[in-house]
Amino acid sequence: AIVGSGAVGCYYGGKLAHGGVDVHFLMRRDLDHVRERGLQIRSPKGDISLTHVHAHGTAASIGAVDLVIIALKATDNDALLELLPPLIHDETMILTLQNGLGNEAWLAQHFGDERVLGGLCFVCLNRTAPGLIEHYSQGAIALGEHLRPPAERTRSVVAEFLRCGIDVRLVENLETARWRKLVWNVPFNGLAIVAGGVDVSAILANESLALLARSLMREIIGIANQRGHEIPFTFIEEQMRATESMGPYKPSSLLDYLGGRPVEVEAIWGEAYRQGLAAKAGVAHLETVYHLLKTLCV
Amino acid sequence: AIVGSGAVGCYYGGKLAHGGVDVHFLMRRDLDHVRERGLQIRSPKGDISLTHVHAHGTAASIGAVDLVIIALKATDNDALLELLPPLIHDETMILTLQNGLGNEAWLAQHFGDERVLGGLCFVCLNRTAPGLIEHYSQGAIALGEHLRPPAERTRSVVAEFLRCGIDVRLVENLETARWRKLVWNVPFNGLAIVAGGVDVSAILANESLALLARSLMREIIGIANQRGHEIPFTFIEEQMRATESMGPYKPSSLLDYLGGRPVEVEAIWGEAYRQGLAAKAGVAHLETVYHLLKTLCV
Repeated sequence: AIVGSGAVGCYYGGKLAHGGVDVHFLMRRDLDHVRERGLQIRSPKGDISLTHVHAHGTAASIGAVDLVIIALKATDNDALLELLPPLIHDETMILTLQNGLGNEAWLAQHFGDERVLGGLCFVCLNRTAPGLIEHYSQGAIALGEHLRPPAERTRSVVAEFLRCGIDVRLVENLETARWRKLVWNVPFNGLAIVAGGVDVSAILANESLALLARSLMREIIGIANQRGHEIPFTFIEEQMRATESMGPYKPSSLLDYLGGRPVEVEAIWGEAYRQGLAAKAGVAHLETVYHLLKTLCV
Repeated sequence: AIVGSGAVGCYYGGKLAHGGVDVHFLMRRDLDHVRERGLQIRSPKGDISLTHVHAHGTAASIGAVDLVIIALKATDNDALLELLPPLIHDETMILTLQNGLGNEAWLAQHFGDERVLGGLCFVCLNRTAPGLIEHYSQGAIALGEHLRPPAERTRSVVAEFLRCGIDVRLVENLETARWRKLVWNVPFNGLAIVAGGVDVSAILANESLALLARSLMREIIGIANQRGHEIPFTFIEEQMRATESMGPYKPSSLLDYLGGRPVEVEAIWGEAYRQGLAAKAGVAHLETVYHLLKTLCV
């Protein structure tokens, strides 16, 4: 089951369905469209068109499944308290592909530690129309277990993803991987909004914004290191170079902001900021961007 | 002569003219309007209506004067190289009422150290229509000499201002007074813009913005202290309380930003940031706001 069928849910769910996996999508916005016309993925790696998609309006009509993939925005987590129970049997794994920090902990608290896996998506995607996902570049998932090294079941999930053409790798420490991802998300998703709605290539091209991107990365790495996640500061320039290949990409947070939809301010910036304060690390740039986002975003 | 006849120039020049001083305004935008219809100041302290105003389109038509008051935006300083020479005789004093740091030094460099006075205006004003200045609250000027304690001539300027109903006091150290003013301008003018166009009462009322205002004040005081200007940290809460009395005031930088006009980014934020870097003081909040303003403002 795919819970939350935006760009991320439809892209990975679509790839799995295309590979023959029995995938069921829990949908809201695009439900009618996808039922009638299916799901399209446009990608430089090859377009995918799925004409018969199992699209559901309620979790009850899906029933219990082996793997729940959560691609709902973290701001909607409360809805999971009602959406997940019908989908869960004794052995059901819950894999969150959500952004930021704190989602695995939240799921573990409500549905049991042992079920929870997490994945970080390194992918440039946008949902550009109902049932239409544009895939621009990248696509990898870093997948691991919550507070544990990967178990056998997780390796079988990885094998199935790989079989369906999804570039996925196991991570020993999911939390460290999350911090590494924040090193990108905090500056680029954040500056895209507070600098007035700019894409990532504009951030790289603007001397002031590139300076702030590096300052924010330095802070996030400092906080991560203080909390025991070893990330070298050379990672900053690696990330700057990797961003060049993305072109004029608008991060999903910016699209949400421009569309008047909720932005995952707490999961991405708020949690990092609070953990930085608790670790007595330097947080001044992050504090400024976080509080501006809290003010600007719904 | 008043050079730069926006809200500040017209307000103080208007008060002096109303008091009987022979004031000549160098005007651009409002020249025709003021020539035909004069100058109006609406103020809780009493309205002023000046029907016959000496409004000029060129400095040459004014000629040499005893005191030049500069109320041009710092972003237009280059224009002063042409505007000032016709106004200057051997004893002419140049008083800058401009915002931020660096204006006295710039004037001293081009027109001689000994001429230069500076004044800090603590006043809530807006030019709301051609020839119409709205005065909301405050009105004091802190006046001093560039890199010198006040001399006799400055005391006579002060006496003349006081006679015309302008609340003016002498400061022993103009540079320290400028840093004290930045403690307010940096957070309130800056956050008003980067938080999406909010007035000062909205900054006080918003928990995130009030927190950032205090963080920015703390940094500015830290930089000032490092540079030998003693400002106590208790000044922060004094400033927060003083801002409450301003109501929903929009700082002039915000009005400039919203009107698509140049904002004094370098004089207010850039100079403070560079002096902070040079003094190895903490500048992270200021760095973030300064670079966002550089990106957002023309």
